[in-house]
Amino acid sequence: MENLLNKIIDNNRHLIKNGALADYIPALLQANPNHMGICIMDIDGNVYKAGDYSEKFTIQSISKVMSLMQALIDNGEDYVFKKIDYEPTEEPFNTLFKLDFPHTIKPSNPMINSGAIVTTSLIKGEGEERFNRLLELIRRVAENPNISYNEEVYLSEKETGDKNRAMAYLMKSRGFIEGDVEDILDTYFKQCSIEVTTVDMAKIGLFIANRYRLSKEDKPICNAKIASILTAIMATCGMYNFSGEYAATVGIPSKSGVGGGILGTIPYKMGIGIFSPALDQYGNSIAGYGIMKDLSKELNLNIF
Amino acid sequence: MENLLNKIIDNNRHLIKNGALADYIPALLQANPNHMGICIMDIDGNVYKAGDYSEKFTIQSISKVMSLMQALIDNGEDYVFKKIDYEPTEEPFNTLFKLDFPHTIKPSNPMINSGAIVTTSLIKGEGEERFNRLLELIRRVAENPNISYNEEVYLSEKETGDKNRAMAYLMKSRGFIEGDVEDILDTYFKQCSIEVTTVDMAKIGLFIANRYRLSKEDKPICNAKIASILTAIMATCGMYNFSGEYAATVGIPSKSGVGGGILGTIPYKMGIGIFSPALDQYGNSIAGYGIMKDLSKELNLNIF
Amino acid sequence: MENLLNKIIDNNRHLIKNGALADYIPALLQANPNHMGICIMDIDGNVYKAGDYSEKFTIQSISKVMSLMQALIDNGEDYVFKKIDYEPTEEPFNTLFKLDFPHTIKPSNPMINSGAIVTTSLIKGEGEERFNRLLELIRRVAENPNISYNEEVYLSEKETGDKNRAMAYLMKSRGFIEGDVEDILDTYFKQCSIEVTTVDMAKIGLFIANRYRLSKEDKPICNAKIASILTAIMATCGMYNFSGEYAATVGIPSKSGVGGGILGTIPYKMGIGIFSPALDQYGNSIAGYGIMKDLSKELNLNIF
Amino acid sequence: MENLLNKIIDNNRHLIKNGALADYIPALLQANPNHMGICIMDIDGNVYKAGDYSEKFTIQSISKVMSLMQALIDNGEDYVFKKIDYEPTEEPFNTLFKLDFPHTIKPSNPMINSGAIVTTSLIKGEGEERFNRLLELIRRVAENPNISYNEEVYLSEKETGDKNRAMAYLMKSRGFIEGDVEDILDTYFKQCSIEVTTVDMAKIGLFIANRYRLSKEDKPICNAKIASILTAIMATCGMYNFSGEYAATVGIPSKSGVGGGILGTIPYKMGIGIFSPALDQYGNSIAGYGIMKDLSKELNLNIF
Repeated sequence: MENLLNKIIDNNRHLIKNGALADYIPALLQANPNHMGICIMDIDGNVYKAGDYSEKFTIQSISKVMSLMQALIDNGEDYVFKKIDYEPTEEPFNTLFKLDFPHTIKPSNPMINSGAIVTTSLIKGEGEERFNRLLELIRRVAENPNISYNEEVYLSEKETGDKNRAMAYLMKSRGFIEGDVEDILDTYFKQCSIEVTTVDMAKIGLFIANRYRLSKEDKPICNAKIASILTAIMATCGMYNFSGEYAATVGIPSKSGVGGGILGTIPYKMGIGIFSPALDQYGNSIAGYGIMKDLSKELNLNIF
Repeated sequence: MENLLNKIIDNNRHLIKNGALADYIPALLQANPNHMGICIMDIDGNVYKAGDYSEKFTIQSISKVMSLMQALIDNGEDYVFKKIDYEPTEEPFNTLFKLDFPHTIKPSNPMINSGAIVTTSLIKGEGEERFNRLLELIRRVAENPNISYNEEVYLSEKETGDKNRAMAYLMKSRGFIEGDVEDILDTYFKQCSIEVTTVDMAKIGLFIANRYRLSKEDKPICNAKIASILTAIMATCGMYNFSGEYAATVGIPSKSGVGGGILGTIPYKMGIGIFSPALDQYGNSIAGYGIMKDLSKELNLNIF
Repeated sequence: MENLLNKIIDNNRHLIKNGALADYIPALLQANPNHMGICIMDIDGNVYKAGDYSEKFTIQSISKVMSLMQALIDNGEDYVFKKIDYEPTEEPFNTLFKLDFPHTIKPSNPMINSGAIVTTSLIKGEGEERFNRLLELIRRVAENPNISYNEEVYLSEKETGDKNRAMAYLMKSRGFIEGDVEDILDTYFKQCSIEVTTVDMAKIGLFIANRYRLSKEDKPICNAKIASILTAIMATCGMYNFSGEYAATVGIPSKSGVGGGILGTIPYKMGIGIFSPALDQYGNSIAGYGIMKDLSKELNLNIF
Repeated sequence: MENLLNKIIDNNRHLIKNGALADYIPALLQANPNHMGICIMDIDGNVYKAGDYSEKFTIQSISKVMSLMQALIDNGEDYVFKKIDYEPTEEPFNTLFKLDFPHTIKPSNPMINSGAIVTTSLIKGEGEERFNRLLELIRRVAENPNISYNEEVYLSEKETGDKNRAMAYLMKSRGFIEGDVEDILDTYFKQCSIEVTTVDMAKIGLFIANRYRLSKEDKPICNAKIASILTAIMATCGMYNFSGEYAATVGIPSKSGVGGGILGTIPYKMGIGIFSPALDQYGNSIAGYGIMKDLSKELNLNIF
């Protein structure tokens, strides 16, 4: 298996030169574009790793999966989806314009920035507590108490996050979010700056695949229904406005982040973490997509 | 099993009163809103039927699955997806406005009207041939040579199809479609008027689930890759701008039509046909959605 | 005065090379891009001409002023402005997307294509009568019984008018227009193909300036209120999505057409006809704009 | 004349009951909805007043005329209109969505909020200086050194200004504005809170009509070209997305504010100040519009 993973990495290395590091968060430009890592964990406890699997990178939008998990735990699905829709959008992750349309009543889905800001606002807690509870959940699910956030990236996001700020104030003005906008954004910027490895991500993916259980023997931390909701949202919205093509060509429910990570989850089977920081035009890891396509084909993982 | 299906029908009958027959195609108003039918076929050859399973209804948007199948067979996936994107949209099935945006280069996906009109334009054939080839494919896949179209519905669609006409001319003006617009629309209106039963639909669903084979022993009529593409597109775009919520709450790749049908396909497992003509605000069968939710739960069919 | 006009023509001749003939109506590509003509008529009966003032060109969008005049005469302002708004738009003349928005109830104004198609639909008459009545009005106001339409341009417009067709069918589907769409479009394409000279246009401009009278001694053909409405609409919407900048830099209520004409009217003072067929990015005569700017400055014509 | 003005006030008093005080800035709800005042000043020094002409109200959006004046004085027209377009929009004063479109490069015009925020950002000065310079200009033009801002309204605007904040951050993220967003907004909220009377406004209107001169004998404070630009922008954009209808039915270049004021200017003739705080759906004084319509008709002021 490790041989196969190494071969897949090699086969996709050429894609890196067609991508570029995320440039709108200056701190992300310091990543090494040549990094490529894979970690796969299956439900039977097997773990497979290859390449730069142990490199740290910031979780970025992949945190949207975890903040949604926390918001669902805190509020239940009925309340959460009163505030955020489930619908994929063909607009980019940072789209804003529909939030200004008279007939819009909530952001399209929790995997784009506007929806994710609402998600974050729904996590219970005062001040730092909101972020700390989310961090605690991630540490618990990844079984890694050392996970923390990167202060430099956080400050960089905060400083350059004017588009997110615009969204948040627009949603505040329309009653889509409650509470202090700068506080919510602060949590949001911090959650995006959490540092993880492909191993952490494979754990998270397996946790969802395993219906919210750390192992088959464990009890779920909440009901399995949430796992299938989360998986469906990843499958339909997780790769930004490339989600449809990704579903048609890969078929693994996934979530990407502009830090270069991709988190995959295959219901009842497997969790996958991929890392390669050069991005395509949609903000997805360009080599990561290639790796996922090959994994899906070679290991027969396409759920469709 | 039939007991379960009958129970599910009964449990969802009350939803009908919250829905309404499609009113923008006058001929559809003649449907009996109380009809409710189910047909399920699994890969082992079992067939389960309940309620008004043998009632005929017009296929409407479910034909988009079949025309996409034909267009893919005729042109290959590369060519087809140069002309139509794979991306779900949060706009209604008859949305048009993005086709006028300067940066738009193709319709969002083949499950909304604009994309489906492009799909139809890609089916090979002159004049009647295009429609006849599509009809032949449907008859073959459903193993029912008696399938035909409803002349009255077709004429009604043609007469009241001004929104579709607007889309088609707009796409023509932008070079998104080639050929004679009225000819293409004529095929499109006819394909929507094809009459089927839940049994025909379950067959089609099973054929896709079975990777383009009429039975496990058969050879596929084309490669299995197309089946997973089709399934993924149904999962992400098949229920109009309710596709995301449907995926999260049902988890069965499906396509609905305003005639009241829902076609479901569960990869390697099962084909499902549902019929109940009262629609919700999205244009999906309102009781059909309820039935699918119950089937998914009771038979554990959620793929996410 | 003729000296001044000739000097102004010479001063603006260099602009032609930055413009281009309208290319979306093939027949318009046959125009001579070097033509430049001016005709000015004041309320005291003085007429000034320069350059290619007697060249014929198709009236194109300038016909929108006359069809609005006829629609107002036929229906009164209350009825007309129930069907068309008065509001300028920053979108191009052939914009369509807002017609698809749920909260839109009528096209923005009668100077863009969508509004003008509604205007044409409001002219009374069956079949050819609608066009003939409009032609008769133009002949009467321009005091030129020889005005007619160019068959070749008309057929070219009809053949390539798919964007206009899309608009018309969209408006039909939303109830913004009544009647047979192809009939209305036929009148619309014909009215755009009417051939005029700068002299005809100066007459029309003077007629409006003179509050709907052919001369100071005449009785108005309808009430003066319509003249001020028409003038206001020209001032705010007449130069497409350049109307604001044109008002700020020229200050003469005007209407342009892609045939290269500009019609100007200065209330109680003057009518102006300009012709030069090379267009800028907005679809306005590029040298015509330069000429109008100079005329406004030299003759102190800015109404603001 | 005062008789006529009083009669016009009486004729339009019934309109008040169809309007409502601005409710999105809580402090504005304290206004007396029954106030109605007029002040007219002509170029020969005549002053006519009626009703509640001496009541103070906050200038709100009418300040956009003065901030544009200051920005033009500070930067010249070429620079200003590189940053803000001149084009009227059919969207409401607080529209935002087009700022998110990929092809948008600047806000539509300086009379809507987004454009006005850019205008304010262009006024020279550090910190308080920017506001103080604008206030000084208003005092000078209105010849009233007592003009100041209402602290309570300012704080109310600041607290509830999330939509404006969203616009400003969005424009910052796209490079449409430079500098500190909260600083710019602070000036913007303060300028909206400046208190004036109809007399102050008539003076401002006359100053523009008089080509930037306090009296016919004075020298202009800058060139007359700016006066015609300002007047044209008021005529095409000054009454929000009612500007077109207002031009067609009143024909007096005007600017309204949600405080209930309307400023009118008739080139070379007259300045007009109107006050009546109940607003219509566009945010314009509902009785003020009626008064302007009557003034235009009775005094023959329509410039079209």
